[in-house]
Amino acid sequence: MADVLFNRVAFIGIGLIGSSLARVMRRDGLARTIVACARTEKTQRAALSLNLADSVTDNVAVAVSDADLIIICTPIGAYASIAKSMSASLKKNAIVSDVGSVKGAVIDAVAPYIPEGVHFVPCHPIAGTENSGPESGFDTLFEDRWTILTPVKGSNEVAVERVAELWRRAGSRIERMDPDHHDQVLAITSHVPHLIAYTIVGTANDLEERLKSEVVKFAASGFRDFTRIAASDPVMWRDIFLNNKDAVLEMLGRLSEDLSGLQRSIRNEDGDGLQELFARTREIRRSVIEAGQHIPPKPPKYSDQGN
Amino acid sequence: MADVLFNRVAFIGIGLIGSSLARVMRRDGLARTIVACARTEKTQRAALSLNLADSVTDNVAVAVSDADLIIICTPIGAYASIAKSMSASLKKNAIVSDVGSVKGAVIDAVAPYIPEGVHFVPCHPIAGTENSGPESGFDTLFEDRWTILTPVKGSNEVAVERVAELWRRAGSRIERMDPDHHDQVLAITSHVPHLIAYTIVGTANDLEERLKSEVVKFAASGFRDFTRIAASDPVMWRDIFLNNKDAVLEMLGRLSEDLSGLQRSIRNEDGDGLQELFARTREIRRSVIEAGQHIPPKPPKYSDQGN
Repeated sequence: MADVLFNRVAFIGIGLIGSSLARVMRRDGLARTIVACARTEKTQRAALSLNLADSVTDNVAVAVSDADLIIICTPIGAYASIAKSMSASLKKNAIVSDVGSVKGAVIDAVAPYIPEGVHFVPCHPIAGTENSGPESGFDTLFEDRWTILTPVKGSNEVAVERVAELWRRAGSRIERMDPDHHDQVLAITSHVPHLIAYTIVGTANDLEERLKSEVVKFAASGFRDFTRIAASDPVMWRDIFLNNKDAVLEMLGRLSEDLSGLQRSIRNEDGDGLQELFARTREIRRSVIEAGQHIPPKPPKYSDQGN
Repeated sequence: MADVLFNRVAFIGIGLIGSSLARVMRRDGLARTIVACARTEKTQRAALSLNLADSVTDNVAVAVSDADLIIICTPIGAYASIAKSMSASLKKNAIVSDVGSVKGAVIDAVAPYIPEGVHFVPCHPIAGTENSGPESGFDTLFEDRWTILTPVKGSNEVAVERVAELWRRAGSRIERMDPDHHDQVLAITSHVPHLIAYTIVGTANDLEERLKSEVVKFAASGFRDFTRIAASDPVMWRDIFLNNKDAVLEMLGRLSEDLSGLQRSIRNEDGDGLQELFARTREIRRSVIEAGQHIPPKPPKYSDQGN
């Protein structure tokens, strides 16, 4: 057990991301004890039967008491009330971290409840699939992905480094970033793409019945990828958009302008303009490939059901 | 050679789709002779060295003379001049087909040049990857996908059935459709999704340098899928948008309205509205999975370079 990083880890919420990290901890013996806090009995039972946790509870205060590391893995909208519930039960020198896709709003919601002597290390692993729930996790999800840490003013460096080391063990590369800058980058790389996918699938959903069934039948021509993205957890995504409103609306504004321009190019049959844009976007793909970020995650067979 | 379907097949253009179909023909001995017509020497050499064709030429008239089946596999914008060039050299009872992603405009461009006694069978296999060129093809590309035939008024049924049989041999399921209806379905399942992917990647491309490099670095959060789609062949896609202008603009109009609505929901922090839409789109994903159209094509290792 030379590799133990934390004595007792509490997961608050244990879906795709939480359960994947718990799997890494189990695989490599990184935590002596894991406790999972989940609202529903179904999730609690799953966490136990998948051996993701030694004990389960629906009580946040119970989960965090005596924990060295608490990782909030719920939709962002629940953070403030979770932070409030845990506040009085956190032990001195404990580390509170999270995996949320927005950082500015998360820090605003959680930081006020972090007592003196407890360390808050906001965190975001850039990894995921469209699946949700504890069954959908797998221990290679974070390999060769980036995990972004957004420490706040006065963050304890030892605590930040302990969290970084945990993610390195999960196969992740570490980046440090200002929270607001993180939210801007994620708005364009993740939040707006998801919003667009939701929109386009929603538009298709509103088509007359016959056309709609054909859209499903012939989804292999591009639509398929959008339906996959638009199958992500609704509550999680609702909270992301509500909590990264400004950056998302700013990027959406730019996108709408560009879309109008493209619409005009088609209307005016400006073939050169279209071709020139399409050639430029191909370049970006090349950069993504060079950066090694083009390969989609490969969940093992057992978690592939229903997808 | 009991399985020979055609004596002599001419491919006009031999990129991803053409070369994949040629591979199927070679594998199963469906054609006695294959001739490939390509403009560049590079493509001609590739067609020979990959054993996709017995002979190559850059002359359309030479390629089609004596062919039983001619399949146009170039970008759609070249169809009219190709049809004009082949017209006088087509032998009686030959079948002219294609694989273009638009059917109405294609029929308008090609049909006038089809002589009496030659059969035109417009065709569209709903399959593809973001790669282009003869090296990118593979013989399983069409398996479990749909191929849509859009025969025109007075199409010869025997000719239509011969083309359908060829695609069945490639593993494809066959659907017949009115050309204009095809173009409407493809606008929403394929053309608009590609346009959106091009737009969003283009918007990212216009960001300030630092942000742009981070977008590439953290592409795994959703952006990745868009860069893949936006890496498709620029000329092919230019031609698709120019030739399916009306249906694309109509669908883009609907999409813009829906996007504005979503923008408003975020601005007004209408969490219930967002969640309700996101839950609905998840349903469509389920339908796509039930229809077996959710699995992306799996090119064999050798064609995986650079992607």
